[in-house]
Amino acid sequence: MNIGKLITIWMADANDQLIKFEGKVTFMKIRSVNDSDYDIISPQINEWWSGRQMSDMLPKLFFTHFQDTSLIAEIEGGIVGFLIGFLSQSYPKEAYIHFVGVHPSYRNQKIANNLYRDFFQMIKKEKRSIIRCVTSPVNKGSIAFHKKMGFKIVEGDTLVNEVSVHLNYDGKDGDRVLFIKKVD
Amino acid sequence: MNIGKLITIWMADANDQLIKFEGKVTFMKIRSVNDSDYDIISPQINEWWSGRQMSDMLPKLFFTHFQDTSLIAEIEGGIVGFLIGFLSQSYPKEAYIHFVGVHPSYRNQKIANNLYRDFFQMIKKEKRSIIRCVTSPVNKGSIAFHKKMGFKIVEGDTLVNEVSVHLNYDGKDGDRVLFIKKVD
Repeated sequence: MNIGKLITIWMADANDQLIKFEGKVTFMKIRSVNDSDYDIISPQINEWWSGRQMSDMLPKLFFTHFQDTSLIAEIEGGIVGFLIGFLSQSYPKEAYIHFVGVHPSYRNQKIANNLYRDFFQMIKKEKRSIIRCVTSPVNKGSIAFHKKMGFKIVEGDTLVNEVSVHLNYDGKDGDRVLFIKKVD
Repeated sequence: MNIGKLITIWMADANDQLIKFEGKVTFMKIRSVNDSDYDIISPQINEWWSGRQMSDMLPKLFFTHFQDTSLIAEIEGGIVGFLIGFLSQSYPKEAYIHFVGVHPSYRNQKIANNLYRDFFQMIKKEKRSIIRCVTSPVNKGSIAFHKKMGFKIVEGDTLVNEVSVHLNYDGKDGDRVLFIKKVD
């Protein structure tokens, strides 16, 4: 691979007309978070969440004390996604994914998918076999994504748009969809 | 002790006039948190913090996944204080105190003091020797309390009211005073 270099690809279309593609080869690196990632990510969070006030939900402590289970996706040195997770200290077989974000310009490129897969691998090494996370019932994209990644919905109190929801479960906007995945 | 029973105490004042005290003997119990404590504490937090919007800063995950290092102070079955802490997963010698609150009617009764002392003991058993926490520069009561509990201030960027502050350290209102305590 010629990372960072311009490459040219010629293809023939249905009419045997030659089409030229020109572009740069990039690659994505996934690494652990560090303290200074907070200063880059925190000011962008509300924008990544389309204006929802979310940055207060992710204090710096997660970037300081849960570095080994939290991941950054980088392309050419720029942060394009992150996953903040930790090992449950109450439940020795469980891990928890608290916060996941992908830069709006880098959606639908399997970045979250890759972050989750790396997290699953890491969790297995830590001898944890259960992963939990929660999302808001309004976040249909998140619900679909978690189902695709093999998470099951933990049955709640009521159905909202055919999804089982735990009413008044957590602080902000209360209701939550709870997910669980076994990684054996 | 006659817990929960009315007792009477007679005392003489300076003029040998007898004064009668009547009251109930209560005691405080400190125990680990559980999931359902969240439902009791979360709706009270903004009130305990004199109207500051603080409840979003304490999502339920802390009551679920950090139960063994988080404490509830109870008097007669009612929650009068709590401490939410965890073991750092990045720094194997460190523990962190995230959130501490005392019911406004039970201030100045050494409840936070007792919660911290129990946390220190617990941390020693876990072979951790460093405790960190942060507070806002505006919270003068918290700064004085931590100094009294043996915490040192980690030197920051600037002085605010003669206290060393890390500017723009964390999300909400940015600036923070950082504390550290060694428990050997």
